[in-house]
Formats: sequence, C-alpha cells, structure tokens
Amino acid sequence: MSDFAHKYDPGVQVAADDALCLHRNENLFVSRAWTVDTARELVERAAIGSYPDANSDALRGGLAKLYGVERENIFVGNGSDEVLADLLSILRPKYDSVHCLDACFKVYDMLAERMDFQQKVLPGNTFETGHIDSEGFRGLAVIDSPNALTGRSVPREEILALASHPDSFLIWDNVYGEYSGDKLPAPPAGNAVYVRSFSKYYALAGLRVGYCIGPADLISEMLARKDVFNVNCFAQVMALEALGRQQEFEALRNQLVESRTVLIERLRELGFEVPPTDYVAVLATHPNYTAEFLQAELLARQVVVRRFPGEVTANFIRITVAPTETMEKFLSILSEIVRD
Amino acid sequence: MSDFAHKYDPGVQVAADDALCLHRNENLFVSRAWTVDTARELVERAAIGSYPDANSDALRGGLAKLYGVERENIFVGNGSDEVLADLLSILRPKYDSVHCLDACFKVYDMLAERMDFQQKVLPGNTFETGHIDSEGFRGLAVIDSPNALTGRSVPREEILALASHPDSFLIWDNVYGEYSGDKLPAPPAGNAVYVRSFSKYYALAGLRVGYCIGPADLISEMLARKDVFNVNCFAQVMALEALGRQQEFEALRNQLVESRTVLIERLRELGFEVPPTDYVAVLATHPNYTAEFLQAELLARQVVVRRFPGEVTANFIRITVAPTETMEKFLSILSEIVRD
Repeated sequence: MSDFAHKYDPGVQVAADDALCLHRNENLFVSRAWTVDTARELVERAAIGSYPDANSDALRGGLAKLYGVERENIFVGNGSDEVLADLLSILRPKYDSVHCLDACFKVYDMLAERMDFQQKVLPGNTFETGHIDSEGFRGLAVIDSPNALTGRSVPREEILALASHPDSFLIWDNVYGEYSGDKLPAPPAGNAVYVRSFSKYYALAGLRVGYCIGPADLISEMLARKDVFNVNCFAQVMALEALGRQQEFEALRNQLVESRTVLIERLRELGFEVPPTDYVAVLATHPNYTAEFLQAELLARQVVVRRFPGEVTANFIRITVAPTETMEKFLSILSEIVRD
Repeated sequence: MSDFAHKYDPGVQVAADDALCLHRNENLFVSRAWTVDTARELVERAAIGSYPDANSDALRGGLAKLYGVERENIFVGNGSDEVLADLLSILRPKYDSVHCLDACFKVYDMLAERMDFQQKVLPGNTFETGHIDSEGFRGLAVIDSPNALTGRSVPREEILALASHPDSFLIWDNVYGEYSGDKLPAPPAGNAVYVRSFSKYYALAGLRVGYCIGPADLISEMLARKDVFNVNCFAQVMALEALGRQQEFEALRNQLVESRTVLIERLRELGFEVPPTDYVAVLATHPNYTAEFLQAELLARQVVVRRFPGEVTANFIRITVAPTETMEKFLSILSEIVRD
C-alpha cells in the first residue's frame, strides 16, 4: 500500500465564515459575475446530460488560435494533474530519472514515486539564486516556472536550454505563465511541451481543465492513451468562453499584480524578507519569528496561510494575494503579531 | 504510436437540428428541469473558482449511506472511465490476463491493450445464451452486466461466482444496474468491486462522475494513486443532489421501461428479433434486412442508430429508448423501410 495520498496536502479546510483563507494557489481576483452569473448562463450550452466532446476539439481549436499553433499541437486534460501524469507515463519508457527544481510542485514527487522515476534536483540552487545550470543537460526535466511553491521564475533561456540536446525532453510547467508574461515558443520544439491551466488565470480550478502545447506526434499519442471522455462538458464550455474574454482577465491580472506589489512593500516594512514572485502568492520569512510561529498565530486569529515544512522554503509562510480590502485586514492582523 | 483513439467510436455526431439521435448510451428520459434549471441553481454551491474536494468525501458519504456501506468502501472517479483504468492499473501486477464477455464494452479492449493485459473471453457464449460458465474460474474478470453493447444481463449468481476463489478478482461493471434492479452485496467481498456511474440513470454523462464500491484496502490504494483533484466540483454537487432525488429518478426509469416495452413489441410486429435488454437501449435484427442496410436507410432519413461491426452483434442495430413521441416518429420511419 502506497501513501501518496498523504503527501499532497492542498491546505487545511477552514469552515469559519469569517476566516481569511490565504493558503491556496487560487486566483482571488475574480468576480461572481464570472463564476456564478456567466456560469449559470452557460450551463444549458454545456448539455450536461450528454457525453462531452471526447477530445475537447472546440477548445483545442480556440487554444491553437491563441498560441498560433495547430490544433494537433494541443492536448486538453482533466486539470494539469492529468496532463502531467499522461506525459510522464508516455515518457517513462525512455527515461529512468526526472529532474526538477530544488523547491518544486509536490505532485512531481507523487508522480515520480507512482511511476518509479528516480527524482533528481537540477544544479543551480534555484530557490536561493533564481537560476539553474542547464549547460550540457541530458535527460527529462519538469520545471515549474513560475514555481508552484515560491512563485519565482527561472529565466526563459535557461529553461529552454534543457531541451537543447535532442535526447533530452523538457516539460515546462507554466501554469502561472499568464502572470509572468512568459511567451511560449510556437511552433513547439520536437522535444518539449508547455503545460498551462484554466485553474489560476481564468479562475476555473473547480472545473479541472489543463492543457499542453507540444509536438503533434506526442499530442497524438496522448489523445490515443487518455480516458475516452476525460474533460467534462461544462469545463470545455467555460474554458472556451474564457478565451474570448482576454481583456477582462488581463484587467484582473493587473489588479492582482498591483495588490501584490503593495503587499510586498508592506511586508518588508514589517521586517519580512520577500523573494521575487511572479504568481498569485507571496513567500515571506521574518528574522525574529519562525514561520511555524507565524502560521500558528495567524490561525489563532482565523487567518490561514500555507507553509512547506521540510523544504528549502521551510521557514517561509506563503500568502495568497487578495484584493486590497482583504490584504489590509490581513496586514493589520499580521502587524499585531510581529509587533508583540 | 498506438491507435487506441480509433478503437472507441462514441458514435457519429449529427448536426442537423431535426435528426433523431438514438445511437448513444444516454438517458433520454430526463427533463430540462434537471439538466438546466437545477444545474443553474447549483452552480453557486459548486464554487467553480476554487479547487474541488480532492476525494469527493461528501459524495462518498452519500453513496455509502445509499448502499449501506462505509465511506471507506467508496471511490469516486472522473467517470467510470477513470475508475476502470485505476482499478486495472492497480490489479495489473497480479494478473496477466483479463476475462470479459464475448460482446463487451470497447473500453475494456483499449485498457487491456494500454496496460498489456492478455484479453480472454469467458466461456458460455453469453450473447447467445445470456449465461457464463463461471465454475472453477480463476483470474481477473471484468463483466459488464447489463452489457454495454446489448443491455443483456448475466444472472447475478454467475457473476458473483467469478469471485469465489480468493485468488480471483471480479470487477462487476454495473453502470446500468439501476435499470436492472441489481442488488449489490454489502459489505463488498474482499476480492470484488462494483462499478456504477451518474452518467446514465442520473443523466449526468457530461459531468463525468463514476464510482466503485469495494474493499477498504483497495479503495484506499485507489485514493492514494489517483490524480489529486480528479472529480470536478460541479459534478460532485450535482451527483450529491441526484442522490437526494430517488423518487424523481425512479419515476423516469419507470417511464423508460414502459417506453422500451412498447418499442420491443412494435419492433417484433415489424418482424425484428429483439434479445432481452435491461438498459437504456434495444438491439434488433431483421431476417430480411442487414443491419448495415437499416442503419444507412435510417441515416438517409436523419435517424441515427448504432451498430457494432466485427462483433457477435454485427447484424444488429441498437436503438436508444426515447419518450413515446420520439419513438412513434422513429417507428413510423422504420416501418417505411422494412415495408418497402
């Protein structure tokens, strides 16, 4: 019996109505107009009583247009979870090891164990330096940049260099790429795929829709091996609608970035050290208080933040960026703790 | 490059508005009140911007209550597709072969090929006789009863006998079990699981939610190995709501059975031979017309029915049961063809 289930902890569930939940990698800059009103309007179009489009072809078409690639370069899965699992399963016969950053998305650890990959850390001390040493790399790499734990990005050219040798393969997990403004190569290289999601930027985490952009032969193999109806119809309809609302989501991103900038400044004023971040949350560590203490004190005041014990990030708390009013409430509570 | 994608054909997509689509295994006895109005009401409860309950615990609780088992006996997956794939993947190290009925769900063929199982046919010529010879069986069996292609059931005691030897394992794919009134053993045996779905009886095919009832240690292993967020939040909410509406869905089933009974009588009056069926569709073969001819003639008249070439069922058309008015329209068109 394996124990993967105990390894991925999506964060505590808090029932209190007035709790400040700032612990999950979610986009808090989204309106009821999108997640409730528009969703209600589109339920009928989804035709939930009938089987979905098996290969999400309409959505693949929309994504192909957005990225300037062919539909044959796009695979849509049941969240980036499925996309990553399918990719690694197809690549497993060719590679015995998978190379990741020193701080990385916990799902890679789970998948590596499930598929019996040896997991290795890329040289370069990414969390400290923001860099990897990709010179002469050969093998399979899965890089979350912006990073799932820290939000920090590795420079684009260092990531793409992981695919320079034709025997290497690069999975660039770029699910926060809309926040960092990453421009993905089009057409994709023959030995690289770029993974994105509707969970964060488009605020559809609950509906499960992730995708990747990659070489047509690999995409074709993924389509052939997936479960027949892998993506639910409502997710397909909402995701396609989201693609047509670029300006709306860009405006929300700008609000998030603005709120994040203010949050970082205020945290620094409170004595926190805050590494660079390109996504929906901020890591912070304080010279006088342990992350464990801060998390516990915040929780006692109904504020939930995340922490990753046992990682290079162990002494950091992670705060999900929220709209200004919520951030002010959080900072006011936090300043009571670090002032005491 | 494998070619699984070409093996499962969910049936043609027909765009014409006035086409009669009677070719897919869907529940056509369901109202807009459920798939549109109720769905709209429940969108907010689903909270689509946030990650779903990772293990579908509320839904597992509801199912446990319905079946008189513990929540630890229930696994919920992204359609029965995922449930079957996860089960077979866990059982693969113990079994090299998988035993199926002579006519069976095409997904078993795909999964057997994907996981490198040798696929074998259980003795008994089920399609002709309705029976299997399970005496002395040892191994892994996946039995769709009622059958996915034909709707025919194998007697319960013959199915359960496949698990009599402790080294054997039985997957009873019972996704139409609510139509046949199958009573599943509770608690489940240590070497058997029973698979069901919300796609048919509860008319939620588009949302992808299947489940199985099985021994707690196996369920625990399935939970540990699955993708973290495998079932979308809207599916979880709608499925739980469906469980609270038993009378409503029983009434729809009774309407379906009534319409099916009339359809079978009328088909027999037209000279068709109709084997027993326990589910949402009817197989029919005619002594004077090939199934290929009938399917083509119907299609020319905007009526879509299904056919399974290359199977023991090759000379049958399959007609999905619809409400009376639609069935009358269908029978009127069919009688033009078989009368000519």
